[in-house]
Amino acid sequence: MALNQSAIQGLAAIVGPKSLLTDPGDCWPYGYDNSRRQGLPAAVAFVSNAEQVEALVQLANQHSFPVTARGLGTGTTGATVPERNGIVIAFERMNRILRIDPANRLAVVEPGVVNETLQRALGEHGFFWPPDPTSAAICTIGGNLAYNSAGPRAVKYGTPRENTLGLAAVTGSGQRIRAGVLTTKGVVGYDLTRLIIGSEGTLALITEATLKLTPVAEAKQTLRATYRDIHAAADAVAAIMAQPITPCALEFMDAAAIDMVRQYSDLGVSADTGALLMIEVDGPADCVSATADAVASAARNPGLLDLSVARDREQIAALWRTRKALSPALRHVAPKKINEDVVVPVSRIATFIDTLEQLAHQYRIRIVNFGHAGNGNIHVNLLVNPDDVDEMARAADCLAGVFDCVVALGGTLSGEHGVGLEKRDFIDREIDPPALALMRAIKAQFDPNGILNPGKGLPLIAPEIAPE
Amino acid sequence: MALNQSAIQGLAAIVGPKSLLTDPGDCWPYGYDNSRRQGLPAAVAFVSNAEQVEALVQLANQHSFPVTARGLGTGTTGATVPERNGIVIAFERMNRILRIDPANRLAVVEPGVVNETLQRALGEHGFFWPPDPTSAAICTIGGNLAYNSAGPRAVKYGTPRENTLGLAAVTGSGQRIRAGVLTTKGVVGYDLTRLIIGSEGTLALITEATLKLTPVAEAKQTLRATYRDIHAAADAVAAIMAQPITPCALEFMDAAAIDMVRQYSDLGVSADTGALLMIEVDGPADCVSATADAVASAARNPGLLDLSVARDREQIAALWRTRKALSPALRHVAPKKINEDVVVPVSRIATFIDTLEQLAHQYRIRIVNFGHAGNGNIHVNLLVNPDDVDEMARAADCLAGVFDCVVALGGTLSGEHGVGLEKRDFIDREIDPPALALMRAIKAQFDPNGILNPGKGLPLIAPEIAPE
Repeated sequence: MALNQSAIQGLAAIVGPKSLLTDPGDCWPYGYDNSRRQGLPAAVAFVSNAEQVEALVQLANQHSFPVTARGLGTGTTGATVPERNGIVIAFERMNRILRIDPANRLAVVEPGVVNETLQRALGEHGFFWPPDPTSAAICTIGGNLAYNSAGPRAVKYGTPRENTLGLAAVTGSGQRIRAGVLTTKGVVGYDLTRLIIGSEGTLALITEATLKLTPVAEAKQTLRATYRDIHAAADAVAAIMAQPITPCALEFMDAAAIDMVRQYSDLGVSADTGALLMIEVDGPADCVSATADAVASAARNPGLLDLSVARDREQIAALWRTRKALSPALRHVAPKKINEDVVVPVSRIATFIDTLEQLAHQYRIRIVNFGHAGNGNIHVNLLVNPDDVDEMARAADCLAGVFDCVVALGGTLSGEHGVGLEKRDFIDREIDPPALALMRAIKAQFDPNGILNPGKGLPLIAPEIAPE
Repeated sequence: MALNQSAIQGLAAIVGPKSLLTDPGDCWPYGYDNSRRQGLPAAVAFVSNAEQVEALVQLANQHSFPVTARGLGTGTTGATVPERNGIVIAFERMNRILRIDPANRLAVVEPGVVNETLQRALGEHGFFWPPDPTSAAICTIGGNLAYNSAGPRAVKYGTPRENTLGLAAVTGSGQRIRAGVLTTKGVVGYDLTRLIIGSEGTLALITEATLKLTPVAEAKQTLRATYRDIHAAADAVAAIMAQPITPCALEFMDAAAIDMVRQYSDLGVSADTGALLMIEVDGPADCVSATADAVASAARNPGLLDLSVARDREQIAALWRTRKALSPALRHVAPKKINEDVVVPVSRIATFIDTLEQLAHQYRIRIVNFGHAGNGNIHVNLLVNPDDVDEMARAADCLAGVFDCVVALGGTLSGEHGVGLEKRDFIDREIDPPALALMRAIKAQFDPNGILNPGKGLPLIAPEIAPE
């Protein structure tokens, strides 16, 4: 059912006609994210304050239309793809940095602030906010919180859940709430802050976030280590994580990823390289070299082929070139690849990559793996052509095998991309039925009419089969 | 209503007669914690596995008796004080360390493990679990999780919510669930782990915890800085928190606390000392001295009286003596003091201490303050004699003034002691009505019959006044 005239008038009255799109051609660009999914919203409302969000959600409850929140649409799981005939609340214009408070190590921001914009503003005060997804230049803090998206620095500095002090939000029933505190300790009431973080706009819409800041380290050094095979690289990861210095990035690429980059750029790594680690350490200028040496020593094992240390900015940029060449190369080879972001315990990375090689062979799917090794967060890329029906069927079976392996190894189906529509029907492999029932019960308390991002994050409940 | 015979038989059938106390004299020691509150349980059941916990909670639902979980009773808010005619589930014998896994930086433990026992076991592998309450030698991990208790190291390493990967628990409806993951990233489903942490046994009883480990730094150095007054010390705290090195402890004592220690031991600080900071830094052995120097430089301001740096174990122990002499001195002077653990933003510490001095004067109550300055977590001690009815009345008014000031400064009523019975009726000053309503709704989903620790953590709902 399309939105009726009264609902549309209500929307216009709340955000003003200049902040409302209803023409399908105008709405279309707000109907997709970075997954392959699309949905045409009945309207797009650009909000600029919490009062408007509150009024929109109340209107949605009144008229029973679904509401999907959207930052800048860089998500990869369809979590911001709207329901047909629902509305999109676009947060891109609600993008003020309200306060940067170095003495209290916090910043208060609106959800539409772009991650990189925030980082630049914080940098002037000598601070940063640890979450740094690859899309930092074009993704919003609201989106980072919705998916608990982190990136490479999480290995040392944590994810949004470890770096957010409090939130203001509008629940699905249209009530404004404050969760959390302004301080780094606080245990009054239940932790609604972290419950809302990672809930993909299904419980409440975040209208303000109080972020915990971390001081920028004085200096940084980068190491690139190449190994004969993934087992040697995985051993190095485990050895690095078992010693006292935690790197601020510990990234890896498997042989398939290295081969792919090699086709497009001069890698400067030898032909027999079977795996590559990029390791970054930070700390006081006086001791970052010693720190790098300690990590280098843990990275050395009989399978090591080459170890380079970059001690200044230019050398660091040169070393990262390989890793940074990967995403464009991947896009070139397989523009519609399936990109998963599963996590396995660090000690199981090698076993997992072995299994992926078997699955690639079994299903005749090319798989390229890279990711945040220090967290066991592996980006598994199935290079498929979506127009090839047979290949897509094999890829679906292969993916089911990947997820089975992840769960069997004690891992999780998503580290930072979230569930959205893509993984919704898989998560009951990981979450047990009573926990899932509790999650549904919590959802019903925040959003009794089910208007917030319906169908995302949790598996649909199978309709009861009516008796004949 | 006392437990009926069938319920008692049920308890005995579940844990065995040797693990069940029903004699009031035997039960009494399980009826209090470190608050001044007491309640006699109808029975105490010592559990040794999750199946028993599940069966006990199911029995409680069947017979409608309340259940209070208990570690070793070191809490200070009455959260483990049982309801009359309810039972205590004692976790002290369910105390195995199930797994220490350095490569994955995790440990799996039962809730009854004593914090210090765990730390010793982890130390052998070069790791620790950051939460370190003052009672670490006698408090359990289950209790640390129930209150989100942290201690001094939280300023650098966080609280239990930042250091727990997953939980197994039994909900109030008697269902066993698993929450969270084994890895440091994971965003599948809602975050039940942190919802249960800090919920004081009102949502679910933790039967197993997967803890995130941190490597022990190679070296540590300690600084003691004395200041003319609290303003100078607070300025130093802000300056320390605004520079790149985060200390692993940043503790303070106010003038009243210093005076108190001075009465019982040789302090070695000058008579005009108005405030004292204990600062600890850790890091690689090669650079911990440079680190200490950087922090010392931030600690220097015109109000500094003296700065000592301890670079080896003996010197460190000598410096900590002052701080460690405080608790025994306090116990001696006021064995039944009121000990609050409020939090204010770091930049408001001086204003807060000023207000406390005014309140002390206004209500003629002696107040001694110390605490975790780096988190703004101030332990406010009202030295009262509970037998003095007039003084206790003034203390209650004074405390209300303390809480008002905390909320007005943007702080929180508890940093790590929790709410329990003590602060239950104050938390609606901090949490807004719709958030509180959501917390109650969540409680009702986990514990539909309200058998888990009733009356703790959330304010009681005022009975509706019946119409005449």
